[in-house]
Amino acid sequence: MKLQNLLPFTNWLFRYERKNLGGDITAGLIVTVMLIPQSLAYAMLAGLPPEYGLYASIVPLFVYGLLGSSRVLSVGPVAVISLMTATALAPFAEPFSEQYIKLALLLAIMTGVIQLVLGAFRAGFVANLLSHPVVAGFITGSSILIVISQLKHIFGVQAAAGHLPYEAVISLAQALPGTNWVTLAMGASAIALLVLMRSPLRKLLKRVGLSEGAAQLVSRIGPALLVLAGMGAIFFFGLDARFGVKVVGEFPTGLPGLTLPSLDLPVIGALVPAALAIVLAGYVESVSVGRSLGAKRRQTIEPNQELLALGAANVASGFTGGFPVTGGFSRSVVNYDAGANTGLASLITAALIAAIALFLAPMFASLPQVVLAATVIVAVAGLVNFKELLRLWRYSKADGALMGVTILAVLGLGVEIGIGVGVGASLLAYIARSSRPHIAVVGRLAGSEHFRNVKRHAVETFPGLLLVRIDESLFFANTRNIVDRLTRQVAEQPELRHIVLIFSAVNSVDASALEALESLAHTLRGLGITLHLAEVKGPVMDRFDKVGFTQHLAPGRVFLSTQRAVQALRGSPPISTRAA
Amino acid sequence: MKLQNLLPFTNWLFRYERKNLGGDITAGLIVTVMLIPQSLAYAMLAGLPPEYGLYASIVPLFVYGLLGSSRVLSVGPVAVISLMTATALAPFAEPFSEQYIKLALLLAIMTGVIQLVLGAFRAGFVANLLSHPVVAGFITGSSILIVISQLKHIFGVQAAAGHLPYEAVISLAQALPGTNWVTLAMGASAIALLVLMRSPLRKLLKRVGLSEGAAQLVSRIGPALLVLAGMGAIFFFGLDARFGVKVVGEFPTGLPGLTLPSLDLPVIGALVPAALAIVLAGYVESVSVGRSLGAKRRQTIEPNQELLALGAANVASGFTGGFPVTGGFSRSVVNYDAGANTGLASLITAALIAAIALFLAPMFASLPQVVLAATVIVAVAGLVNFKELLRLWRYSKADGALMGVTILAVLGLGVEIGIGVGVGASLLAYIARSSRPHIAVVGRLAGSEHFRNVKRHAVETFPGLLLVRIDESLFFANTRNIVDRLTRQVAEQPELRHIVLIFSAVNSVDASALEALESLAHTLRGLGITLHLAEVKGPVMDRFDKVGFTQHLAPGRVFLSTQRAVQALRGSPPISTRAA
Repeated sequence: MKLQNLLPFTNWLFRYERKNLGGDITAGLIVTVMLIPQSLAYAMLAGLPPEYGLYASIVPLFVYGLLGSSRVLSVGPVAVISLMTATALAPFAEPFSEQYIKLALLLAIMTGVIQLVLGAFRAGFVANLLSHPVVAGFITGSSILIVISQLKHIFGVQAAAGHLPYEAVISLAQALPGTNWVTLAMGASAIALLVLMRSPLRKLLKRVGLSEGAAQLVSRIGPALLVLAGMGAIFFFGLDARFGVKVVGEFPTGLPGLTLPSLDLPVIGALVPAALAIVLAGYVESVSVGRSLGAKRRQTIEPNQELLALGAANVASGFTGGFPVTGGFSRSVVNYDAGANTGLASLITAALIAAIALFLAPMFASLPQVVLAATVIVAVAGLVNFKELLRLWRYSKADGALMGVTILAVLGLGVEIGIGVGVGASLLAYIARSSRPHIAVVGRLAGSEHFRNVKRHAVETFPGLLLVRIDESLFFANTRNIVDRLTRQVAEQPELRHIVLIFSAVNSVDASALEALESLAHTLRGLGITLHLAEVKGPVMDRFDKVGFTQHLAPGRVFLSTQRAVQALRGSPPISTRAA
Repeated sequence: MKLQNLLPFTNWLFRYERKNLGGDITAGLIVTVMLIPQSLAYAMLAGLPPEYGLYASIVPLFVYGLLGSSRVLSVGPVAVISLMTATALAPFAEPFSEQYIKLALLLAIMTGVIQLVLGAFRAGFVANLLSHPVVAGFITGSSILIVISQLKHIFGVQAAAGHLPYEAVISLAQALPGTNWVTLAMGASAIALLVLMRSPLRKLLKRVGLSEGAAQLVSRIGPALLVLAGMGAIFFFGLDARFGVKVVGEFPTGLPGLTLPSLDLPVIGALVPAALAIVLAGYVESVSVGRSLGAKRRQTIEPNQELLALGAANVASGFTGGFPVTGGFSRSVVNYDAGANTGLASLITAALIAAIALFLAPMFASLPQVVLAATVIVAVAGLVNFKELLRLWRYSKADGALMGVTILAVLGLGVEIGIGVGVGASLLAYIARSSRPHIAVVGRLAGSEHFRNVKRHAVETFPGLLLVRIDESLFFANTRNIVDRLTRQVAEQPELRHIVLIFSAVNSVDASALEALESLAHTLRGLGITLHLAEVKGPVMDRFDKVGFTQHLAPGRVFLSTQRAVQALRGSPPISTRAA
């Protein structure tokens, strides 16, 4: 049973049902057609020769297809991870150089190893670190950066990527006077056609009588047709030689061999933050799309198994000429819609891409870069979403600010630092919120053994005795606040002799809170005040006993009930009665 | 009133009470005697010429004395911040070089600016980021590193600091064959004498008839006497010229002028993480000692004002030849014990150090470095605390592991990364814990309108209707888990038609949770299941209305009570009754 969870393919491969085959083959074919231009474009976005995009779309797909807990996720190169790869490697080597390629392999392996370790420790919850505003801000910000990175291809100019995003913009602006007008015309037409092919064309085809399925199919293979048209234009009109339109150029035919990454220890150390950011971004993209598609068919996905499967896919990618991969959003949706039923769809795609790398690679030599850039731009531009920023702001200023900060950090400092800033800001906001726990000074309802908040009920209080109910578990981020509030009470009430903390709602006390309680007891003792506890739960008391906390509390005591504490500690009959 | 809080000296300076004067003068004097060797030693630990230690002990003390909300905190150079300064600056310049000094000034100003900004935004809660195990691990780890950094002076050898701690150890080991035996003999005796002077001497003096106060005084000025003895030995026996014992050497007499920091933008960017780590470490040391001393006199300290005061002190330090400072633990305790009543004690210390810089600086030329190193070692060695590691482990494996990880990270990767690892690990542990919120499937107590956990009570449930009570506020780190658990329930119960989430304990719903609820409603709708809410609190409902959440929920409804939801949704009379 457990092995079955670790090797999900055992659930479908050995008892493959014939009825699934049609959907799997269709989906495998359609995703292949979509993946060809994407894989080439994303490789070049990552700063790698185009064939590496194909390599990253063979073995990783195969590995994920077998090990993934989602049956419809389409793993492979995706835009944002490719951009992050480029940003991470830029300081260490020249894009497209041999050293750069080795570092890309290394980064894929590092990413994979981190994912495997997280998966082994069942740390799938790390995805929770990314709140919705941070993910939304990250997607909008990085999509804008990806569009910017492609504009040089649209204008047909040379421009540097730069260390920080604004440098790329400056470099592009400086290069604009050298615009290649033929390239720009091709780029503009390609973008226009791609936009038309998305939704208007589908509607038109349906109006002229095509079925929904056929119309969708045409709209999906549109980008591939455009790629073919672009190659034709270069081939027949010689646009590259005559007008200087940049083409992908020839690249080696064949399958990737076993590749070995660079093993430079200081560089590995320096790449750790980038690898962590890629792990986080890739995992979140993968799991969120896997979840939403899985839920539609009542299939659950297992976050920790996903980490293991993505980790294995990335390690495999690093050893077979690939770069970091993850489950892509748009491709997975297409895979699902086209009818993928099992991981076989991914295996089919992998086999087809391998066949293309083996036999059709020479075709792509005349593929114009501007067409690839147009494909990328149209794919990511739809992800820019400022409406969400407005909606979040309306819902809650804090969440809106979080998305805004993440967008600005991504645009100003790059994707990797941007995601770090976003995560840091949301954690800070969360800690800030949870560092003010609810506590209540309580008194006794006259004639009963019930104790209630003095602010809300008419209750009796006792001179020299302060009863405080703690309404949350105590841990490092909230205990300091409680101690501060108690200290203030003490400073205001010089007649105080006993403080009783009522622990009825305290389920756990971590070591920081324990330490704070000990030092509070010590401080109060110096002021002639004794600290007591009441209604401490069993598991909490067990821990206290392990470190002899009651001795630190002495002469303070632990009372079974608040009532008993009052009976033991009240010096005189109640003198005051308050009401709200 | 508010201005008084921002300028705390207005509370004591203009209405200074004569009775406070004696204590303030005594404390000012004793702290000065203690500060002289410390300031010289910490400057050299930070990689700066000794006079910078004096400079950092003049204006910053003055500024904090006026602005600090603690009346007894002694601000100035401290060991761990000096070590962090050295680690931060090592990659950018040669220690003791002019460029290095400019960077130290810059780092002080950056630290100060960050503190001022945090203070202005009232972000004193950031101290909560450091849990007790992380602080304890940080102190033990960094104290070991400080001892290691001083060993070269004890052996009288040259050794490099290294980028990572292990490099310093290797460098020291390689240099040991060149040990200067005279230096080592002086170092060993100095350490032995200092250890004796701490507690054994005090006990002895009391036994021979001295009063507690007098015995304590002797024990406190012991290190200063040792410094005098060391200078005497050099001066009279010429140990430096004859045996190569290293001395501090001559340094300029006089007060610091207005100094200007280096303003190299990329370097500023690269120093940000170090500055943040120094802010965190310095603030925590300062506030924790300030709090514990303040509480003894029923004086509270104001965390945000402390950030402002420390920030101003650091900015002042950067412009008057200093380096990053904070409130030191041991000096503050001495200040308190010696009777400091107001900030005047700090002003006196500052004035005395200024006088020494002006008139006595030449004296220190013959101060042996080995004696300073012995002072530092004895001061910090007492902070190494492995017993606490055991105690924490006994109390809770998680907290013990946290301290262990922090020690290892500090020793393996240095103080700055170490503190980051510790903070990151405790946040992760916290998020992991709070990402599994308590939810309960509930049913109705027969014949009543009360709903209780089906696992604990004999209650009626309703076919096709799932009632789930959410027991915590919803936010980004815990909602995913709830959605996953609900999705699993749905996969197991194909007959399900309605799910009602009971929000009676939900005080807030952040944007991430809102998004998760929307997509849950959407997913369930696709499966023919309708999601409803019940008992939503007023403030939560207000927010929902702002973004039209009820439309996303439709046809799902929001019910005032669970009872009404059941009445509206139950298709048929209850058929099953469960009990635990």
